[in-house]
Amino acid sequence: MDQIIKTIRANNRFLITAHVNLEGDSLGSQLAMKELLDALGKEAFIYDADQVPEHLRFLPKADRVLNKITSADKFDVALVLDCPTLKRVGKVADSIKDKFIVNIDHHISNEKFGRINWVDAKASSAGEMVYRLFKDMDVELTKEAALCLYIAILTDTGSFNYDNTSKVTHEIAGELLGYGLDPAEVSENVYERRDIADIKLLGRVLSTVKVDKTGDIAYMELTKKMLEETGADISKSEGLVNYARSIDKVMVAMLFREDPKYPGKIHVSFRAKADADVNKIASSFGGGGHTKASGCVIDGTLAEVENKVIAKVEEMLHKD
Amino acid sequence: MDQIIKTIRANNRFLITAHVNLEGDSLGSQLAMKELLDALGKEAFIYDADQVPEHLRFLPKADRVLNKITSADKFDVALVLDCPTLKRVGKVADSIKDKFIVNIDHHISNEKFGRINWVDAKASSAGEMVYRLFKDMDVELTKEAALCLYIAILTDTGSFNYDNTSKVTHEIAGELLGYGLDPAEVSENVYERRDIADIKLLGRVLSTVKVDKTGDIAYMELTKKMLEETGADISKSEGLVNYARSIDKVMVAMLFREDPKYPGKIHVSFRAKADADVNKIASSFGGGGHTKASGCVIDGTLAEVENKVIAKVEEMLHKD
Repeated sequence: MDQIIKTIRANNRFLITAHVNLEGDSLGSQLAMKELLDALGKEAFIYDADQVPEHLRFLPKADRVLNKITSADKFDVALVLDCPTLKRVGKVADSIKDKFIVNIDHHISNEKFGRINWVDAKASSAGEMVYRLFKDMDVELTKEAALCLYIAILTDTGSFNYDNTSKVTHEIAGELLGYGLDPAEVSENVYERRDIADIKLLGRVLSTVKVDKTGDIAYMELTKKMLEETGADISKSEGLVNYARSIDKVMVAMLFREDPKYPGKIHVSFRAKADADVNKIASSFGGGGHTKASGCVIDGTLAEVENKVIAKVEEMLHKD
Repeated sequence: MDQIIKTIRANNRFLITAHVNLEGDSLGSQLAMKELLDALGKEAFIYDADQVPEHLRFLPKADRVLNKITSADKFDVALVLDCPTLKRVGKVADSIKDKFIVNIDHHISNEKFGRINWVDAKASSAGEMVYRLFKDMDVELTKEAALCLYIAILTDTGSFNYDNTSKVTHEIAGELLGYGLDPAEVSENVYERRDIADIKLLGRVLSTVKVDKTGDIAYMELTKKMLEETGADISKSEGLVNYARSIDKVMVAMLFREDPKYPGKIHVSFRAKADADVNKIASSFGGGGHTKASGCVIDGTLAEVENKVIAKVEEMLHKD
């Protein structure tokens, strides 16, 4: 961290980037980093592979995110936030791979691809790390920066419910609220800008929920027909599997999805509770992920894939 | 608060109670209060009108809640938690109405029905107030008490998303985590013990979501048939209206419910966003509540009541 502070002080032109598929933490931490560099009188711009999703455009100065740059956009240092690997920045990698990279991340799997690597797996979010830069560099937070950091922390901790939430996380969140943030207003902006098509799709998917005879396994389906009839976007359906996970006593929850883009294949999302390990299961079908959340893609129809996967999950659960 | 501390120190036998329909705050704050009195060497028991709901029985020592007492159960002081009115304690009122009542509550509408009334509308929860008693009385929190208070705060702030969340709330939550609580484990216990019937009912209700032509009004239906087919319990359906509220640009969300217990009547739940006032609307139909959340019961069929109420909401929204 000292090295990062020295690097920031010693240089004048910065590129800020983060992973593809921008969400609350990657976007919030980048916008706050830009505020920090502005306050220090540095030149800085944010360059991301992906556009800011519609539902996050309410973040202050979200229009500062550029999706292309030219050779006229000069920078001495690339600050890469919330990225476990360099590949995850998408096309931005071409512009920064031969430059001086500062890697600031909280993922334990971080590959330390930078010249300087500040990886803190105990931090709830990249936002929490940028907050510490403000403090250690003695830069006063603006209300805008506070809001961006608060959203980064709020979204990356699942509203302070995930196991990355610590005493420090709450202390920082409390301090950020002190900059005049209204938690209910932020929450409305973050969580209550849903599309009616997504609500309809959720209804359709939940109506398919089933639990196996042991009660250990819950699963749901998402079909092409549901997407057509509701007009919903499949990219927003990943989290739906958590509803199956939330059923009492369920150890493994699954969502089987037909994706119009991949005919003849079924995407399976897994979630685990308690001691179950769904990384093992997804890996056995050529996928992967974490112990508690994983996925894979399997050839076949919905019925075929369901039968095959459920049999495998039952076998693994009851063998352990 | 000084008066309360004096009263606790000066007496030896306490009854602890809270409102009917126990939830996280009323239950957690009572159990923590019992821990406080135990630590002080006092005799105390918890007496509530309602049983602890299934999904909250994981709270430490939740089996301490009694649902009946006899004249042999003596007490000098009744500590009433999280109750805006004495009536809200249900049948417990008979046992305490002529006794020395200490009223500890965070509802702004509190009617100050006690001999001593400590009403702090700035506190997030009754749990936050009991936490302050521990601190001011210099009693060390047990891990069990910390867990009860954390659950009280977590649930009453909607995971720190509601506008009763303050800097102090986060500071307390952070300190409570320091007693060895695992936020993800607590969250699983609190939010992930759902009944599959409730998930199915949610699916059916969400599938009925509609938005009016202005986009300001979203509404859903819950029918007797859905209850029969899913086997779900109507008492757990109050919160479903929030899904309609979460749609972008919606000002007023409604859930129309057929309740098998009240044939010929429809229960309407209202939720508001931004400046909309649903207390006015519910009141005009003989109901009531708060600006942002209210309800009423209207004679008629689902279709009749929907037409009548939606027309009224449209009129009010577009007149303002």
